[in-house]
Amino acid sequence: MSDKGSPIGVFDSGIGGLTVVREIMRQLPDEKIVYFGDTARVPYGNKSQETVTRYSEQIVRFLEANQVKAIVVACNTASAVALAELERKSDIPMIGVVKPGAKVAADTTRNGKIGIIGTEVTVSSGIYSRYITKLNNKATVIGKACPLFVPLVEEGLLHDEVTDEIARRYLSELIATGIDTLILGCTHYPLIRSTVGKIMGKDVTLVNPAYETAMELKELLGRNQLLNITNSAAPAVDVASDRTADRYKGETLHANEMALEEDRYRFYVSDGAEKFKKFAASIIKYGFLSAKIVNIEEY
Amino acid sequence: MSDKGSPIGVFDSGIGGLTVVREIMRQLPDEKIVYFGDTARVPYGNKSQETVTRYSEQIVRFLEANQVKAIVVACNTASAVALAELERKSDIPMIGVVKPGAKVAADTTRNGKIGIIGTEVTVSSGIYSRYITKLNNKATVIGKACPLFVPLVEEGLLHDEVTDEIARRYLSELIATGIDTLILGCTHYPLIRSTVGKIMGKDVTLVNPAYETAMELKELLGRNQLLNITNSAAPAVDVASDRTADRYKGETLHANEMALEEDRYRFYVSDGAEKFKKFAASIIKYGFLSAKIVNIEEY
Repeated sequence: MSDKGSPIGVFDSGIGGLTVVREIMRQLPDEKIVYFGDTARVPYGNKSQETVTRYSEQIVRFLEANQVKAIVVACNTASAVALAELERKSDIPMIGVVKPGAKVAADTTRNGKIGIIGTEVTVSSGIYSRYITKLNNKATVIGKACPLFVPLVEEGLLHDEVTDEIARRYLSELIATGIDTLILGCTHYPLIRSTVGKIMGKDVTLVNPAYETAMELKELLGRNQLLNITNSAAPAVDVASDRTADRYKGETLHANEMALEEDRYRFYVSDGAEKFKKFAASIIKYGFLSAKIVNIEEY
Repeated sequence: MSDKGSPIGVFDSGIGGLTVVREIMRQLPDEKIVYFGDTARVPYGNKSQETVTRYSEQIVRFLEANQVKAIVVACNTASAVALAELERKSDIPMIGVVKPGAKVAADTTRNGKIGIIGTEVTVSSGIYSRYITKLNNKATVIGKACPLFVPLVEEGLLHDEVTDEIARRYLSELIATGIDTLILGCTHYPLIRSTVGKIMGKDVTLVNPAYETAMELKELLGRNQLLNITNSAAPAVDVASDRTADRYKGETLHANEMALEEDRYRFYVSDGAEKFKKFAASIIKYGFLSAKIVNIEEY
């Protein structure tokens, strides 16, 4: 049985979901987190709905075995095509990143033209458009898949002319439509938001769904009497939250190590724990950020 | 029980192994082929040895269930780190692509300086170097991992300035070493050999292990009395074989459809059969190139 002291489960196809984890650390500093990154089977963004759903179900079973009190699907692709099925099969309260991101975008736009960039699966699912037009039936949503962004980020080319060139190609048609708001619809993309921001120009607001996801998680826990507010620990991290991404700073996050108990954050991956450690350090500066390997196919 | 009429099993992490399949079609036109591409879990090149081995074992069990008479590991990464374990656990004759590629390179070099490009796992395994120095103890082998080549190829950027720029970065240190021979140590790379060839210059010979792999397969089948030479079918394909890659043409292959029986070549993937079909057509021009989806985790 889970209670207020139980951890929150967070998962992603790989390491991008750590951009959501750091936002939960900021906004819910008393909560424990169990993170799973499916690094053996990354990327999800070009796989079929059936495969993404099957993989996600295995991860949910792993998180259930870790007695989590709630689950955050910190992967846009899985949120887009698998969340409904996951919710149907589990009793654990669950949220994805798509609905919160859609809400911020609908609130933010002034001219009603919203762009969404993400993986092939996320963009072709049309799910952001469905959520946004429910909130604002005058909004127009234009999607663009950017399949090379994830490998470029994973290669560490965060500030590089090649990434600039690929981004210019992907984004040019979005610029032409006159959008004033752009959703970073993949958890890897906040890591190249300075590149995206530079190309889109200062009149386009970038939306990082991570902030609103952590907000919505807080509400969900409150509604289910699962919010952990017994401690009064300092925030685990020392960087202010950013609802709409500040594109020129804050791409990494420094943990306040003093405030961290040894066991508060646990990280699991399906492959390459050493590589995870290295990459994770570029997202969250954290003294003892290491991951254990899980054979996820057994779940 | 398998006999001469049984098919040859060929597998890869994805679709790159089709560059080996087309070479087998050329050299062994009477043979049937069962191909498996692990498109759900591609790429293998940045996964751990344990994971690559576990995935490869599942595929071998799938091919065994299809009564293949021999198995070609048409993936450099799996050949580099999993082949020995696969051979230990199966009675089916098996070859990889590394040993044949090493042999061509050792035969080809004049100055004894050989480069090898591949995935992180293949290059860091050092396996090409071990095979080559066994054949030519004066040879020097210089490896360079090129992790962005696979996503660039899968995005279809075969002739593109971005691919040129990334290739220039990866290859510059190899050029500086004065190699005269370069092994395309990943089955995706023959698809960008014109780019690689242009950058390396005309004095560097590119080696595509696929040709020698098909040669070695023929020997292996002969040695085991498994070679199918009962028919006298025309070669299934109308493009000449190329032991050292002709870098300016022949990047796709046209099947002689008249010579093909309906069931001679069977293709299976773990995800995205439609996408496979589209991509496969850029490697092998073939009237009815379609794939069935297999849930490989059940094997």
